[in-house]
Amino acid sequence: MAMTRGIDETHDAALTSWLPGANAPGHDFPIQNLPFGIFRRRGSGEPPHAGVAIGDRVLDIAACRTAGLFTGLASEAAAVCGDASLNRLAALGPAHAGALRGQISALLRAGDTRIAGLPDWETRVLPRISECELFLPMETGDYTDFYASIHHATNVGRLFRPEQPLLPNYKHVPIGYHGRASSLILDGTPVRRPMGQTQASPDGLQPPSFGPCKALDYEVEAGLIIGTGNPLGTRIPVAAAEDHLFGMCLLNDWSARDLQKWEYQPLGPFLAKSFATTLSPWVITWEALAPYRAAAAAHPSGDPAPLAYLDQGSASGRAAINLVCELHLLTPAMRQQSLAPARLSRAHARDLYWTPAQLLAHHASNGCNLRPGDILGTGTISGPDAENRGCLLELTQGGKDAVVLPAGETRRYLQDGDEVILSGHCEAPGFVRIGFGECRGTVLPAVG
Amino acid sequence: MAMTRGIDETHDAALTSWLPGANAPGHDFPIQNLPFGIFRRRGSGEPPHAGVAIGDRVLDIAACRTAGLFTGLASEAAAVCGDASLNRLAALGPAHAGALRGQISALLRAGDTRIAGLPDWETRVLPRISECELFLPMETGDYTDFYASIHHATNVGRLFRPEQPLLPNYKHVPIGYHGRASSLILDGTPVRRPMGQTQASPDGLQPPSFGPCKALDYEVEAGLIIGTGNPLGTRIPVAAAEDHLFGMCLLNDWSARDLQKWEYQPLGPFLAKSFATTLSPWVITWEALAPYRAAAAAHPSGDPAPLAYLDQGSASGRAAINLVCELHLLTPAMRQQSLAPARLSRAHARDLYWTPAQLLAHHASNGCNLRPGDILGTGTISGPDAENRGCLLELTQGGKDAVVLPAGETRRYLQDGDEVILSGHCEAPGFVRIGFGECRGTVLPAVG
Repeated sequence: MAMTRGIDETHDAALTSWLPGANAPGHDFPIQNLPFGIFRRRGSGEPPHAGVAIGDRVLDIAACRTAGLFTGLASEAAAVCGDASLNRLAALGPAHAGALRGQISALLRAGDTRIAGLPDWETRVLPRISECELFLPMETGDYTDFYASIHHATNVGRLFRPEQPLLPNYKHVPIGYHGRASSLILDGTPVRRPMGQTQASPDGLQPPSFGPCKALDYEVEAGLIIGTGNPLGTRIPVAAAEDHLFGMCLLNDWSARDLQKWEYQPLGPFLAKSFATTLSPWVITWEALAPYRAAAAAHPSGDPAPLAYLDQGSASGRAAINLVCELHLLTPAMRQQSLAPARLSRAHARDLYWTPAQLLAHHASNGCNLRPGDILGTGTISGPDAENRGCLLELTQGGKDAVVLPAGETRRYLQDGDEVILSGHCEAPGFVRIGFGECRGTVLPAVG
Repeated sequence: MAMTRGIDETHDAALTSWLPGANAPGHDFPIQNLPFGIFRRRGSGEPPHAGVAIGDRVLDIAACRTAGLFTGLASEAAAVCGDASLNRLAALGPAHAGALRGQISALLRAGDTRIAGLPDWETRVLPRISECELFLPMETGDYTDFYASIHHATNVGRLFRPEQPLLPNYKHVPIGYHGRASSLILDGTPVRRPMGQTQASPDGLQPPSFGPCKALDYEVEAGLIIGTGNPLGTRIPVAAAEDHLFGMCLLNDWSARDLQKWEYQPLGPFLAKSFATTLSPWVITWEALAPYRAAAAAHPSGDPAPLAYLDQGSASGRAAINLVCELHLLTPAMRQQSLAPARLSRAHARDLYWTPAQLLAHHASNGCNLRPGDILGTGTISGPDAENRGCLLELTQGGKDAVVLPAGETRRYLQDGDEVILSGHCEAPGFVRIGFGECRGTVLPAVG
């Protein structure tokens, strides 16, 4: 039985907050968003715990609970918000997360005086994000990366297998692989250029060499975050799949293309991926995303119908997420010349061939157990047009056509000192824009 | 700097225990073994905690510590043995694990009276394994599966890619992929036959179908268990790699061959593997394995020399583990006729193309962080002869040649009710045989 997690008063575009600064237009975190994260006041020595971003501040959920501001399911949900991860909150399921969201919305709404009546509320209950440290929001047992963009799969396939860019399974199976959970890192963490084995000769018959990666790339992705899991040996029907989702974040699946090319047959990418995967700090809840749903991507006529276990029927009409992701690059030269970051990619999650519910139902279709905090990456989000290409591999045709940057520089792949900035937002007619925050990382030189 | 974890008095073949039953010949757990595990007395309600197998009993480390039987590093090590996993013990490193092993060996040695002088020692300090529940020994953040047997890679490659069984990267790169940590299960846990997508037509152009796996297989493997990890962005020199190993266990990487064949391109195996991976309950410590080392497998002349980061130099002479794995099958008909399990595979870990240190150094060569409790599967262990084939895919040539069983039955792949029993042991001239225990699982029917 699917839960209803539809549009309600928390999404009303007319809502404003009594909090100064929270109503600035174009801000990522208006009162309609309310994403969860893990934070602590810098220098406080307090243990990391859960908060909700609002404007340029973070609401301390535990402080509100101590003040008796929550009731019912919201109070039960707030009781696990002293944890150093959102796992237990996510595991409580949509009813709890939704109730907490609703009561936080009410607390922050224009006219409400409960928080501003608390002593030291500006520092104790609603500190500025800039005065806080942020942490990975989830403790992730398993990270899976899918390959849900047919545009990406086709563009990459053309480079690796010109004779057969899209393999016969693609339109039937949501292709994915197990990723590395240990190397998940938070927005802002520098990324060390990996060393690795590469093979310069196209036929693979010359001796390979070991050295710094020469084809370091980013991948524009979104991450689906599991809320309630399923026991090993059970499946999740596609119609109930979204009940198991807690929310979404942005994800940059850093990739060493030269390592990948040499190592990936026959078992898939391994060390080309496991040196870093950057996550954004704020979990945009599934509740917050309700107004920003889109129809599943139209499959070209002649494409196969999904098998029954992946068929969403009439739910297809709002099965996708209308998330727009943008990737900007800031090089050391641009920084020196005070140039703004240059946009390299702009891609739409609604263009993905497979929907979040399909990815999740497929993942559990063999009885695989998903656990709270698990992350399912969409895979690189690309689209039909050149500006929609979500990684340099696609943008530069495998390093052949350099991208020209504002300072007159060019890039085939990332260079040391380059900062990669992934951002994302949702928009819908009649609703405000909500943002996903950022997912940044600067490339550090390899250590030989 | 590599630690010395060599042969010492704990390995002496002349050692015997004062404990009745521990000296029975052919037993897996003589006093020279002393593997760690997690247990609790059945029905006691006590939290799971660490023990050491000796004969048919398990030594309660916390009980010995309470009695003041440990000193120095061993006492520090015993202080974390109340945990429900061995992770903190493993993370302390070889000096601590070695000291604890040494003092436990002394406590159990013939003539020592300290334990037998404690009240209720038979139930409180040394309960029978048969009266205990066992648990997964490690909390595993990431499980990696390698492909270290060139015999397996060649046999399987011949079936999937007859024109090029062994890919050009194989003799340079220790091929591996990220596995699924959530579906790691303990010896004895039944395995539900997975459902999944399969494609019956060889050209992949007919519509696939979704249903129960028809080609369920086992894989004979060993698991390397990480003790001390490495920070993200750092590497582990091959000469120091074994310092990071806590021990080994047996591992059955259950595989759905029909799902695998259809899904594995281009990102590798996914749902074909993530429904179950069975581990044996006892961690054979790296210290215990010292007498059972073997030379790294001889690479045929003409094979490339390993790149410097994988070159073990003179250490190659004892870089492998002389572990023999056996796989037995017991079908419902055999059980009914009281027939003994039939041996299908017998394989030697010393035949692997890559050594444990090479697998570990390669894994961290890109800066990937390994964490205490992580497991590195060797991949299916096969050898040059027919009896060495470590999975049914190889034994039956992809399901073509059925295996004939004692009751006159045949098997191409596993059937419901079949019990798969993986065991392993080490032997060396002048030393006693030590066993790895068992890794069992019975196939349950799929749930449609």
